[in-house]
Amino acid sequence: MAKRILNEYRFFDPDKNTRDVAYELYQIVRDLPIISPHGHIDARLLLENKPFPDPTELIIIPDHYVYRMLYSQGIPLELLGIPAADGTRVERDHRRIWQIFGDNFHLFVGTPTGAWLRHEFAEIFGISEVLNSKNAMKVYNQIVGKLQTKAFLPRTLFERFGIEVLTTTEAPGDTLEYHKKLKLSSLKGRVIPCFRPDSVVNVLSRGWKAAIDGLSKAAGIEVGSYKNYIKAIENRREYFKSLGAVSTDQGVESPWTHKLSTARSEAIFERALAGKATEEDARGFTANMLMEMARMSVEDGLVMQIHTGSFRNHNRHIFDRFGLDKGADIPVQTEYTRNMSELLNEFGNDRGFTIVVFTLDESTYSRELAPLAGHYPAMKLGAPWWFNDSIQGMKRFRESVMETAGIYNTVGFTDDTRAFLSIPARHDLSRRMDSNFLAGMVARHIISFEEALVLCKALAYDLAKKAYKL
Amino acid sequence: MAKRILNEYRFFDPDKNTRDVAYELYQIVRDLPIISPHGHIDARLLLENKPFPDPTELIIIPDHYVYRMLYSQGIPLELLGIPAADGTRVERDHRRIWQIFGDNFHLFVGTPTGAWLRHEFAEIFGISEVLNSKNAMKVYNQIVGKLQTKAFLPRTLFERFGIEVLTTTEAPGDTLEYHKKLKLSSLKGRVIPCFRPDSVVNVLSRGWKAAIDGLSKAAGIEVGSYKNYIKAIENRREYFKSLGAVSTDQGVESPWTHKLSTARSEAIFERALAGKATEEDARGFTANMLMEMARMSVEDGLVMQIHTGSFRNHNRHIFDRFGLDKGADIPVQTEYTRNMSELLNEFGNDRGFTIVVFTLDESTYSRELAPLAGHYPAMKLGAPWWFNDSIQGMKRFRESVMETAGIYNTVGFTDDTRAFLSIPARHDLSRRMDSNFLAGMVARHIISFEEALVLCKALAYDLAKKAYKL
Amino acid sequence: MAKRILNEYRFFDPDKNTRDVAYELYQIVRDLPIISPHGHIDARLLLENKPFPDPTELIIIPDHYVYRMLYSQGIPLELLGIPAADGTRVERDHRRIWQIFGDNFHLFVGTPTGAWLRHEFAEIFGISEVLNSKNAMKVYNQIVGKLQTKAFLPRTLFERFGIEVLTTTEAPGDTLEYHKKLKLSSLKGRVIPCFRPDSVVNVLSRGWKAAIDGLSKAAGIEVGSYKNYIKAIENRREYFKSLGAVSTDQGVESPWTHKLSTARSEAIFERALAGKATEEDARGFTANMLMEMARMSVEDGLVMQIHTGSFRNHNRHIFDRFGLDKGADIPVQTEYTRNMSELLNEFGNDRGFTIVVFTLDESTYSRELAPLAGHYPAMKLGAPWWFNDSIQGMKRFRESVMETAGIYNTVGFTDDTRAFLSIPARHDLSRRMDSNFLAGMVARHIISFEEALVLCKALAYDLAKKAYKL
Repeated sequence: MAKRILNEYRFFDPDKNTRDVAYELYQIVRDLPIISPHGHIDARLLLENKPFPDPTELIIIPDHYVYRMLYSQGIPLELLGIPAADGTRVERDHRRIWQIFGDNFHLFVGTPTGAWLRHEFAEIFGISEVLNSKNAMKVYNQIVGKLQTKAFLPRTLFERFGIEVLTTTEAPGDTLEYHKKLKLSSLKGRVIPCFRPDSVVNVLSRGWKAAIDGLSKAAGIEVGSYKNYIKAIENRREYFKSLGAVSTDQGVESPWTHKLSTARSEAIFERALAGKATEEDARGFTANMLMEMARMSVEDGLVMQIHTGSFRNHNRHIFDRFGLDKGADIPVQTEYTRNMSELLNEFGNDRGFTIVVFTLDESTYSRELAPLAGHYPAMKLGAPWWFNDSIQGMKRFRESVMETAGIYNTVGFTDDTRAFLSIPARHDLSRRMDSNFLAGMVARHIISFEEALVLCKALAYDLAKKAYKL
Repeated sequence: MAKRILNEYRFFDPDKNTRDVAYELYQIVRDLPIISPHGHIDARLLLENKPFPDPTELIIIPDHYVYRMLYSQGIPLELLGIPAADGTRVERDHRRIWQIFGDNFHLFVGTPTGAWLRHEFAEIFGISEVLNSKNAMKVYNQIVGKLQTKAFLPRTLFERFGIEVLTTTEAPGDTLEYHKKLKLSSLKGRVIPCFRPDSVVNVLSRGWKAAIDGLSKAAGIEVGSYKNYIKAIENRREYFKSLGAVSTDQGVESPWTHKLSTARSEAIFERALAGKATEEDARGFTANMLMEMARMSVEDGLVMQIHTGSFRNHNRHIFDRFGLDKGADIPVQTEYTRNMSELLNEFGNDRGFTIVVFTLDESTYSRELAPLAGHYPAMKLGAPWWFNDSIQGMKRFRESVMETAGIYNTVGFTDDTRAFLSIPARHDLSRRMDSNFLAGMVARHIISFEEALVLCKALAYDLAKKAYKL
Repeated sequence: MAKRILNEYRFFDPDKNTRDVAYELYQIVRDLPIISPHGHIDARLLLENKPFPDPTELIIIPDHYVYRMLYSQGIPLELLGIPAADGTRVERDHRRIWQIFGDNFHLFVGTPTGAWLRHEFAEIFGISEVLNSKNAMKVYNQIVGKLQTKAFLPRTLFERFGIEVLTTTEAPGDTLEYHKKLKLSSLKGRVIPCFRPDSVVNVLSRGWKAAIDGLSKAAGIEVGSYKNYIKAIENRREYFKSLGAVSTDQGVESPWTHKLSTARSEAIFERALAGKATEEDARGFTANMLMEMARMSVEDGLVMQIHTGSFRNHNRHIFDRFGLDKGADIPVQTEYTRNMSELLNEFGNDRGFTIVVFTLDESTYSRELAPLAGHYPAMKLGAPWWFNDSIQGMKRFRESVMETAGIYNTVGFTDDTRAFLSIPARHDLSRRMDSNFLAGMVARHIISFEEALVLCKALAYDLAKKAYKL
């Protein structure tokens, strides 16, 4: 019923041959369970299962995809209620913020955020109107009303969305208490942690020292040396694994991999503890830790993920006032062939090891990533990420990667979202685009319908499940 | 009537769903007035309003888009009548040159130059045949006949083309005398200058010293120091503004931005005056002047434009014999995220400031430019430029940029032409391609027809008018 | 008859307008003779004209396109019978290897290798089934049966494929004995060598010294100095030319071109002979040899080809065990505008000289290569190569290159294959894609059908014949 609001054929090619096949393929995968092998939902949300407070808190404030676009058109983040780290007062009237959102909803026309939001309004809340200045308050009230009902509690939605596995992302010092309790709960579907050591790897980041303390405490190992640091990380990986983790993740600007001697690692670690690490130290240490994390994955079986090529906190003003992850991370050119050479030579031929690479640099799809994944047994390509997690982005990814890497060196869709409601919207869009891509190949007689069917299910479900050993 | 010669549906997708919507959108924007916010037409042409001498002088000799393609196939520029700076004799028989053009017109098949020329022949001159060896002289005569009539005088054409605003490009030392007089003329539509300081910014360019003298004279300030240099530039900006200028423009190989200390700037300036500036001096001085020009724009409100990534005068033989702008400028890889960081951190959050960036490096569309424009309030993306001002180039631009930057962080179409007759041809092609792009989204149910309508007008007219404060 | 197995409209756009035009164009070029101006077939195969031993030996073992995909999915090369250089025992049972191939044939779905293989099975062997686990042995037997017949002897196939010219690739020391004898044979069609000096140019490659000895012997010149080295190369070019060669080829990671002084070249050469050449020596020597090879081409008229941007032998384990060309070469970012500047300035304006550039870096198509080819008379663009020799790769190439370089600055299709049976499959795919690309332009009213017809023949036959002076 709610489904009628949006056109059933949306995102498919208008050509009838392609569209009809796409629709047929899509029918088969649309309701498959969701595997979400990487993302940023807080496990606490599902444990506590409290009603979402209001639409602004649910949709705008946690989602930098949404407010960075408003910001780009001159709307200060203060007016959007984004919490300031420096004590600046920000707008607290969530209706007023929502009204600004309504006034500017046209900015999202043709963007993936726009597509997901329309999906959320229509499919989740059953709202048929497109948000605008006039109906903003009416829509706000409609959503507020629903959020108070049991049908819109986090767990109810989780199950309604058909989530089979949801992976969250945690720091090494995290106690995973919510995960522990969730394991014991009646929630249908698994919620599992993912080990992300960035805060203890980047020796120059502001909170490194505190993160090391957290690591010490969590591991019960005094992390006063590189040797103990490595031990503590191995210890935490084991702990994460005991709570269901199947993967790790690292966000690195450059995918340069390089093993340092233990002596050199110790020296850098010492300098870092003394607050005297240099840029070169940081760079070397990260390259070394990519090697170490790969080695550990070979040993403990956790799938290694790397998210590469984001220049974090490009806008210092925004960073100083609002902190990390505020829509001011900008991609940079990224090189894989030379940078990953050491890691792939050391571990890439190991059939038990899997490294999933995500990029923001599309020029590397056909030039570097597909050829690497099309050769090394360990290497797989992650789904189009962030700015590329979009209709055209998915199309370019498949068109650039499929012919060299095939479909079996990719790992299905990853939503990577902080916006809970966008999970089904993102998976639906992905399933539509994959159905359409395959339909295009059927219509061009490159593959048969039967082959498309197998591939379509693989992309929607099987590949993620297999790659992440779920 | 003349319009019947070319297919009404040209450049639209052949799929009927898309094509019909495209055509409907196009009907609404095709006759909107032309805003040309950046280009290289000489204001004198419109002031003097003399008949164009002949087809060769009008279409071939001023347009390096045309003759570089002929050159690439082995036809010497000397035979095409391109004036040689070194005194070499070149062909003077314009009929003979036109015949070569006719003999080789097939080289332009499938190129934007080919599309524009066909538009010019058909829509402006009412010539229905495609140029070839046999009809070259007949066509030449037909055009010659028309050029003698009042209907083909520059001003008549200007008004026939429906130009509302035409921006030219001038050096700091330019007196703008033609602009001054044009302001008093009866010409419908505005012709306004744009301040382009390249000749006084690049301290290593051959004519730098002479350009500094021109600046001194024009500003009435003895430019013997960096301090006075800055004053003189500010002075000339003010003067340009008084004659209607709304923008500046800078052509830079690299968009590296970096503020130098005044002392260092003075030192470089001194060395430059003494003819002793180094490559590093030139690089630093340009980076510094991008910062200074941005500061001035924040102060005086002129929109800042940068055209980046062209390796000028790649072919020394051509440069030595024929000089600048002879079709031998070749793009290079360009980096924006790091290079523009200093400028954007300093001025990018200023909502009163606008910087429009043009690139020749398409790999930066989705990776750097769209994310930057999708975050910083001041940053906007210019239209696909030069080699990318084409059917496929426009398609790639929209597909790569729209999803991350939306449409409101772009500024509509810019023709950037030296070929007067190509203005309506270029805008028509752009309007067709934008109509088609939006129609594709309608046909895929990504946006509604009503939304497409608003966007289509925005791309054809509103965005340029707003971005350039016209 | 066999042709019915595969859909007649395969690879064409599903839109009826485009498809019908594409099919009409394709009908005209499908049976044109094949010009294969660059590839890696062994002339001995055609001279000896022995039956192919079996399907595994014919299709899997010589083709790294095939086995690198199997390897990427965890199948060791040892199990695929790839001969090990280090004495490791590998699978010898060709039926067992073929069974693995059948078990994993789905990995090739949607890849160009998959498309070529289907063509080979259907069009060459008349096998209508898609290979799979179950029918693998049946198909094996069918092929074995055919390979014993006269119809499947190399020469019979050569003539059946309609090959007019086949260019092979040889090292400077090669005696070309098979070419000499083939010239005297009754084979319809020409088989000509191509001079590839890589083994004597890269002073750091393992076999350099041996290759220099081979050069000495073949040229009858004691190559103990750079001077004699150059003489010997000139001598061998002349010899290759006498046996029909029309071209040279160089594989270089970077296209950096730079003339060294004779003194410096001599010094490097001496160090190389003494086994003391450095990385910088090797880099400079290669840059210098690109200049020298261009000079020689200007003098002797051989077309110069360069294949750029492959990081060879990325996987040391594979290299150590199996040697060169085992599917472990990975592309790297490549720069042409600056790197080729010296060569193009020196020789690029020479209308008698032709340099054909092949790239693995698609981001350079519209940014660097098309603008360079669209300006310099000597420069032409080679067909999409290796990973880009695919349906989408060809589409991207044409879409990125055509508008700036036109079609006459490209040189038609190059199969560059080591897999004899794939020659007709690759040319057929290319002809289909070019037909489809041109049909798309006809359907968009960018070009007329008559223009498309001329271009289609040019792409399938004329351009290669003209560019390589055949």
